Amino acid sequence: MAVESEVLVNVGLSRLGRVIDAVRASTVRIHCITSLVAAERTANTLLAFRVRPSLTINAEEIQQFTRASDALLVNLGMLDPMRRAAIPLAVDEARNNRKPWVLDPVFANVSATRRSIAMTLLGLSPTVFKANRSESFLIDSAPANTVRVVTGAVDFIEYSGKKASIAYGAPVTAQVTATGCALGAVIAACLAVEPDPFLAASAALLAYGLAAQKAAHTATGPGSFSVAFYDALAAMDGKTLEKDAVIR
Amino acid sequence: MAVESEVLVNVGLSRLGRVIDAVRASTVRIHCITSLVAAERTANTLLAFRVRPSLTINAEEIQQFTRASDALLVNLGMLDPMRRAAIPLAVDEARNNRKPWVLDPVFANVSATRRSIAMTLLGLSPTVFKANRSESFLIDSAPANTVRVVTGAVDFIEYSGKKASIAYGAPVTAQVTATGCALGAVIAACLAVEPDPFLAASAALLAYGLAAQKAAHTATGPGSFSVAFYDALAAMDGKTLEKDAVIR
Amino acid sequence: MAVESEVLVNVGLSRLGRVIDAVRASTVRIHCITSLVAAERTANTLLAFRVRPSLTINAEEIQQFTRASDALLVNLGMLDPMRRAAIPLAVDEARNNRKPWVLDPVFANVSATRRSIAMTLLGLSPTVFKANRSESFLIDSAPANTVRVVTGAVDFIEYSGKKASIAYGAPVTAQVTATGCALGAVIAACLAVEPDPFLAASAALLAYGLAAQKAAHTATGPGSFSVAFYDALAAMDGKTLEKDAVIR
Repeated sequence: MAVESEVLVNVGLSRLGRVIDAVRASTVRIHCITSLVAAERTANTLLAFRVRPSLTINAEEIQQFTRASDALLVNLGMLDPMRRAAIPLAVDEARNNRKPWVLDPVFANVSATRRSIAMTLLGLSPTVFKANRSESFLIDSAPANTVRVVTGAVDFIEYSGKKASIAYGAPVTAQVTATGCALGAVIAACLAVEPDPFLAASAALLAYGLAAQKAAHTATGPGSFSVAFYDALAAMDGKTLEKDAVIR
Repeated sequence: MAVESEVLVNVGLSRLGRVIDAVRASTVRIHCITSLVAAERTANTLLAFRVRPSLTINAEEIQQFTRASDALLVNLGMLDPMRRAAIPLAVDEARNNRKPWVLDPVFANVSATRRSIAMTLLGLSPTVFKANRSESFLIDSAPANTVRVVTGAVDFIEYSGKKASIAYGAPVTAQVTATGCALGAVIAACLAVEPDPFLAASAALLAYGLAAQKAAHTATGPGSFSVAFYDALAAMDGKTLEKDAVIR
Repeated sequence: MAVESEVLVNVGLSRLGRVIDAVRASTVRIHCITSLVAAERTANTLLAFRVRPSLTINAEEIQQFTRASDALLVNLGMLDPMRRAAIPLAVDEARNNRKPWVLDPVFANVSATRRSIAMTLLGLSPTVFKANRSESFLIDSAPANTVRVVTGAVDFIEYSGKKASIAYGAPVTAQVTATGCALGAVIAACLAVEPDPFLAASAALLAYGLAAQKAAHTATGPGSFSVAFYDALAAMDGKTLEKDAVIR
């Protein structure tokens, strides 16, 4: 398995590794508006990288929390009226303070309501738009200044003519809920320390996929995989990334 | 330990094993209205069987999600006004589309409000009604066309004169939150592939109990049990069920 | 590492160990109003001690659940309008029925709204006020009849001239979300069986710190730590506490 990307071959693995090291050495806080089923995994995934999560969805406080954070994740999973009221306030605050933000349109393929909200948010130019295969029909509506990420057995990243495909990861990941949602938070953390959003997204996906692959080697099922995945994420640094990945 | 059931002796273990294999081979989606403390375990338990969960509780979207699913779980844990508004919409949608649904009246013994909601829902003939010992006083109010399940050290299933008691499982299960709630989702998954609700419920309880028993053998406490339980559920198939269970 | 406390030297470890044994032997129920990201860990931490959790936040039912419980935890994490409506009802019910309650002002340092709510609740004399370093500025506003706990690399407890500092625990604990929140529930469980709130809080912090330290010895990262921590908590009893701790 390998990363396939002309751009990244030139950039080099050490450059991507430095993004991960910068995340681990930073004291950034990522504010995550996410579904309740994804909340714990999202928080623990950020903490594995030593990044501080906050998860408030209270409309009355969301601006203060967004302002105090370094990047924002907007995940539409289990959207409810409270989250729906909080999202535009948080996105406005992020945009007004030039903080990067990630949009994940969970289940926009199932619900027309969700699809319409995702379209409106896409119009506000998220820094990164991350969807899985079923939700990827929305990618065409992403503005040019938004990095497009589609996850699956192979992940694809596209931004302003630059492309990468990342073939790390492990099938068992699909048997652990919210692993895709938590990846959105890792992308946000990389955006908080790396100004080039294509590099930030690439580093996040590569580190995440490598850790999943490593965890899958020792796991005997989704339970032990989940545990080993956290351990592998916490051990994932620039050196490990450089050692374990191949770009071609 | 064994399954005690005249009916199931005649049916045979291979028939129950086929229900589990059908669940694992299917691409069913189960919509789960459940408490936030049970959400992650419920999703991961379904994913261990390769079943897709969705958990939205938004009243505006609940009908679309129920329609797109193959069975519905209504768990009353941590009932709040949002869930309360969503439940009748989801149940109506399930009934109108002849989708099976499971009712789990969590803590109906503690709160009069909860008890009254549970009674109203029982009147709508859930396919399966699953309660623990403390909530089992409601069983008498279940309609004749509802399968009655009471869980505990020994689980009991009763439907239209057919009976089974299942003595698999492990005491440490009670030290892991929402294991009872997640069982409700497994029953819903079996109902989605097996038209006989007594067989569906029996297969679900047997597979779940066997996996718990297996996990308990290697666990050194509730933390390691929880991990091993997911691995054992993911490995539980018809062949394993036939090999490990005894009916008499 | 050791517990430093003149008072506790005189009290003795066996007295603290008896508090933990009383918790494990009891059938107390602790009602926890807590954030959704902390819900599962809080429930599983109580269950590790064989204590029964309930987590409803529905204003319509909160008084019935509080009345049926032996102590109350009020954790302000992810405060939303529903929790905000439930909290004063639960606190009134606890106070009217002389049940102990714990206040944890999560992120009161980030949001002015949260700070103001924490101040109002502090005025109602919680039995124990537990904050981390960032939130500890609120400690000065705690009434004299409230036990003050500040957690960190070393935990501090202060009540009516009695003091203790507890240097057990492990840095990796900070990489697992809601471990601080779950500690609040353990304190509540100890308050439910031990009338001296200083001893109750001391026993809770000591048992929790010792279990974390033990789990960290075998862990290879935050994932395996989290699992081992649950196992260590479930194994933590008076005898283990006496054997592993030192007071000076």
